[in-house]
Amino acid sequence: MKLLLASTSRLYGQGYLEYLIEELRDFFKGAEQIVFVPYARPGGIGWDAYTEIARKGFEPLNIEVLGIHTLKNVSLELPKADGIFIGGGNTFVLLKTLKETGHFEPIATAVRSGTPYMGSSAGSNVAGLTIGTTNDMPIVYPPTFEAFGFVPFNINPHYLDPVPDSTHMGETREQRILEFHHFNTQPVVGLREGSWLRIEGNKVELRGSITARIFRKDQSPIELPPGELLL
Amino acid sequence: MKLLLASTSRLYGQGYLEYLIEELRDFFKGAEQIVFVPYARPGGIGWDAYTEIARKGFEPLNIEVLGIHTLKNVSLELPKADGIFIGGGNTFVLLKTLKETGHFEPIATAVRSGTPYMGSSAGSNVAGLTIGTTNDMPIVYPPTFEAFGFVPFNINPHYLDPVPDSTHMGETREQRILEFHHFNTQPVVGLREGSWLRIEGNKVELRGSITARIFRKDQSPIELPPGELLL
Repeated sequence: MKLLLASTSRLYGQGYLEYLIEELRDFFKGAEQIVFVPYARPGGIGWDAYTEIARKGFEPLNIEVLGIHTLKNVSLELPKADGIFIGGGNTFVLLKTLKETGHFEPIATAVRSGTPYMGSSAGSNVAGLTIGTTNDMPIVYPPTFEAFGFVPFNINPHYLDPVPDSTHMGETREQRILEFHHFNTQPVVGLREGSWLRIEGNKVELRGSITARIFRKDQSPIELPPGELLL
Repeated sequence: MKLLLASTSRLYGQGYLEYLIEELRDFFKGAEQIVFVPYARPGGIGWDAYTEIARKGFEPLNIEVLGIHTLKNVSLELPKADGIFIGGGNTFVLLKTLKETGHFEPIATAVRSGTPYMGSSAGSNVAGLTIGTTNDMPIVYPPTFEAFGFVPFNINPHYLDPVPDSTHMGETREQRILEFHHFNTQPVVGLREGSWLRIEGNKVELRGSITARIFRKDQSPIELPPGELLL
């Protein structure tokens, strides 16, 4: 499998996918057409409008972007695509829609057969074993929390460090992930904005310029620098 | 029904339930024994230890606290209690455990028959129609998101205003609740820390010294001051 899992689609003050453009050029080298999955659709936007945003993001690379919802036969057409990109939004909405449309399995099959997969935010969450470490609000009830499991761990995108001297009594991100490990065993990668994972076969590489926070059950969290991650 | 729904069990720098003590004295007036539900159990703590924290919180009021998990027959014993208190922690864990233990229905029956119900944080979430506006991480998969529905709206506890000049690209709380309304119709009460709702029959009163943020589908959010809320 060949995967690119980003914490976010956009850095503050930048355009959509702007910070990732050189990485995308390399990851999708030779690609002419990729399929975009707009099912996490953030508030107030339709699938067509969201696909249009992705289309513009890939314009500098001369890669055509097709919305999966516009394909006539997903099972037949998806394997022909040069890549699949699932954008961010709400992870619960995304997983529920993937299941309801029947597009979950064709995507899983294509990616396991070698079609390059890119996810950002919610799209990175669903590449993990479960969506149990999403930050999103559970605004719809999906039929399962089990995700694609392209990687043998979970991702926490938009990872946030505790705010020093905060007086707010809600849990910190770290507390939430430690509580996740009371009920689950898989490692969790806390992926800060501006970081991404590049995965080829069993090799998982952290890219970007900052460390990721790695949580393993019954161990203290650790910071790992960019480079290969042994998970 | 008689309900007390608090945003949090504790304010920064204060003891457990300290800020609510006078309200509790009034709400549980005449009560000798209440049943505590520790099923949201925050990380690293057992049901007994969590119940002990609640027991100490009610000590100044001379009210005895029994853990629901120690009752021999919940259906028989719960209706005899002078009140029910569900504490905070993880809302997904709470709802899943309420369902798995079979204690969801006996609690619903007792509260609908008049037993005073107090919730804080996750315990307030489950008093609403669904847990779809919890802030918690979905660390376990509950069999439903439908909650007790003691009130005809949803609650968002620990409500947080957007951080001015934030460069973080995760959604604000307000964005999340507006997205909730793309898929759901019930109003949402954004309950800030230090606020609580006191409900008797159909009367919903906001207490504490700060406003709550009220979200209705297809309307702009509004701030309402302490006093009766028309929802």
